[in-house]
Amino acid sequence: MKVSELGEVGLIERLSKIVARSRQDNAPAWQQLLTGIGDDAAAWRGDAPIQLATVDSLIQDIHFRLGMASWRELGWKALAINLSDIAAMGGEPRYALVSLAVPDSTEVDDVIALYEGIMELARPSGVAIVGGDTNNAAIIVIDVTVIGCAQEKLLTRATAQPGDQIAVTGYLGTAAAGLQMLTQGLKFDPETTNLLRQAFLKPVPRVAEGQLLVKHGVRTAIDISDGLIADLHHVCRASRVSARIDVDLVPIHPAVKASFGEKARDMALSGGEDYELLFTGPAKVISKVKTAASCPVTIIGEITAGKPGQIALTDRRGKPYELGKDGWEHFVSKTSAKKA
Amino acid sequence: MKVSELGEVGLIERLSKIVARSRQDNAPAWQQLLTGIGDDAAAWRGDAPIQLATVDSLIQDIHFRLGMASWRELGWKALAINLSDIAAMGGEPRYALVSLAVPDSTEVDDVIALYEGIMELARPSGVAIVGGDTNNAAIIVIDVTVIGCAQEKLLTRATAQPGDQIAVTGYLGTAAAGLQMLTQGLKFDPETTNLLRQAFLKPVPRVAEGQLLVKHGVRTAIDISDGLIADLHHVCRASRVSARIDVDLVPIHPAVKASFGEKARDMALSGGEDYELLFTGPAKVISKVKTAASCPVTIIGEITAGKPGQIALTDRRGKPYELGKDGWEHFVSKTSAKKA
Repeated sequence: MKVSELGEVGLIERLSKIVARSRQDNAPAWQQLLTGIGDDAAAWRGDAPIQLATVDSLIQDIHFRLGMASWRELGWKALAINLSDIAAMGGEPRYALVSLAVPDSTEVDDVIALYEGIMELARPSGVAIVGGDTNNAAIIVIDVTVIGCAQEKLLTRATAQPGDQIAVTGYLGTAAAGLQMLTQGLKFDPETTNLLRQAFLKPVPRVAEGQLLVKHGVRTAIDISDGLIADLHHVCRASRVSARIDVDLVPIHPAVKASFGEKARDMALSGGEDYELLFTGPAKVISKVKTAASCPVTIIGEITAGKPGQIALTDRRGKPYELGKDGWEHFVSKTSAKKA
Repeated sequence: MKVSELGEVGLIERLSKIVARSRQDNAPAWQQLLTGIGDDAAAWRGDAPIQLATVDSLIQDIHFRLGMASWRELGWKALAINLSDIAAMGGEPRYALVSLAVPDSTEVDDVIALYEGIMELARPSGVAIVGGDTNNAAIIVIDVTVIGCAQEKLLTRATAQPGDQIAVTGYLGTAAAGLQMLTQGLKFDPETTNLLRQAFLKPVPRVAEGQLLVKHGVRTAIDISDGLIADLHHVCRASRVSARIDVDLVPIHPAVKASFGEKARDMALSGGEDYELLFTGPAKVISKVKTAASCPVTIIGEITAGKPGQIALTDRRGKPYELGKDGWEHFVSKTSAKKA
């Protein structure tokens, strides 16, 4: 059945049921909710001193192509990229609003799969879907707003200081490798194929890690959505500092190295959408984080006093490193979501 | 200059300046703001017991056509429809996130005009624009999220009781008349033209009135976005009651009556997007509201015990009234935003 046949009221009823089914009575978000889907606005009791909010979109033919991603993956990713922003503030995600535009000819089952993808991530994250908007449009636009909360301390972009170590969670370039695989139809063994596809389409936001950073005294972080260098540049500009990266230290998954060879490093440096956290802090703080974190944490360079925003790339012998001009970088700079 | 020539980073810098210029140091939203545009998420100190959130979109060729509305008007309306949802909860709007998708070929000046339209309404409403997202897309999509707050009491859809009077603020059908004028190229005197255009493109959300309703003991309200009957139906379904409307009591602006004759009544009954408030309550409460409100408040019927969601239309002599099948109703039912 098409969306146009079911009608919007019918569609919303179905989607509400999917959301209601995944209600978690023991999650604070659900416990404090007063009105969810079905009123003019969502309402809940706030209990944290600091509120957080972020919005990010997935747009057809800009961020994804329909043949490339399943509807379920799109739902997951649309929520994940927003949870990642809350993670990069050190906060706790609580509520989400989903504003969805799809053509009239869209299958109802596809929209349901999209919502199931959202719920697959919302449920373990303790996030309640509390509202939104469903519209007809010529292309698919999935806009998710996430509202979260934090205690007294936050991670921001503006607090990096010369002498801080620069560290990242996980591996970089895996999502870029995934996008290349999907767009160029590259073939790999099933394990690598799965790793790359998941990295690009089902990134796992580092929510617990963001909270861990705050707890151990980190004050500066950003999530890697535009690419390592671009996002480090954002931090350096906001903090009015420069940075030096040892490109040989940038963590790359062995399967990406094996599959993409020399190109892997540039993917790790400038390919975006990994949704790992980049953070800075004194060596002692970073060392505590490394011990406490359950994911890889790698020191890749340091913050320096210099021209605000400038980033020096060197290899392990201190020789300047020049980024190759691969197509992916351009694709990203044209299409990735930039924060307003 | 086109958006593609300036680039997204440059565009965001320009838009941030427009927002910063309208910063109001004495508004609570700005006073409590910790990080606004330029970090991973917006952050602020919350001080109200209840938080509210809503999202609504304006989509090109669904909600507007470019020749029909100026960019400035689109900015105003995109925020207004969300403030109206906060008003319908009896809340106070505080923060907004703007997720904007425009084609690469869009003029930078047009995007700036859109933001100026947003700020024209945000400023007097005490709303701080604290983030968003700017993307490239084949069509224009303006998605605005508004976060607000409330004290202990709220207006919801689920609290109407048999015996309640049904009342509305302002006049109905004016926005529908405006849409007809714009789409059909109808000509009227300058005053009427202005009234109709403003009603459809620059609706004034009833924020103060929503708070006044709560203060005087009203507990049930909705904003009229889908049309009087459709929105009353939402209330009746949520409250499990029915309603009776005297169509002769429905308030219509004299200029709309004069310009549209017999069609005016059906526009008032089923034309949407007036963004007036529909509310219900005991006669004593409604009477207090009528005295206190600075806008027209009209009693148009009553809540009855009957089949949930059923609405009876009668004229002043008690004779059943049948809605005409005009084109506008169909246009609305296909295109207006339905709440998820």
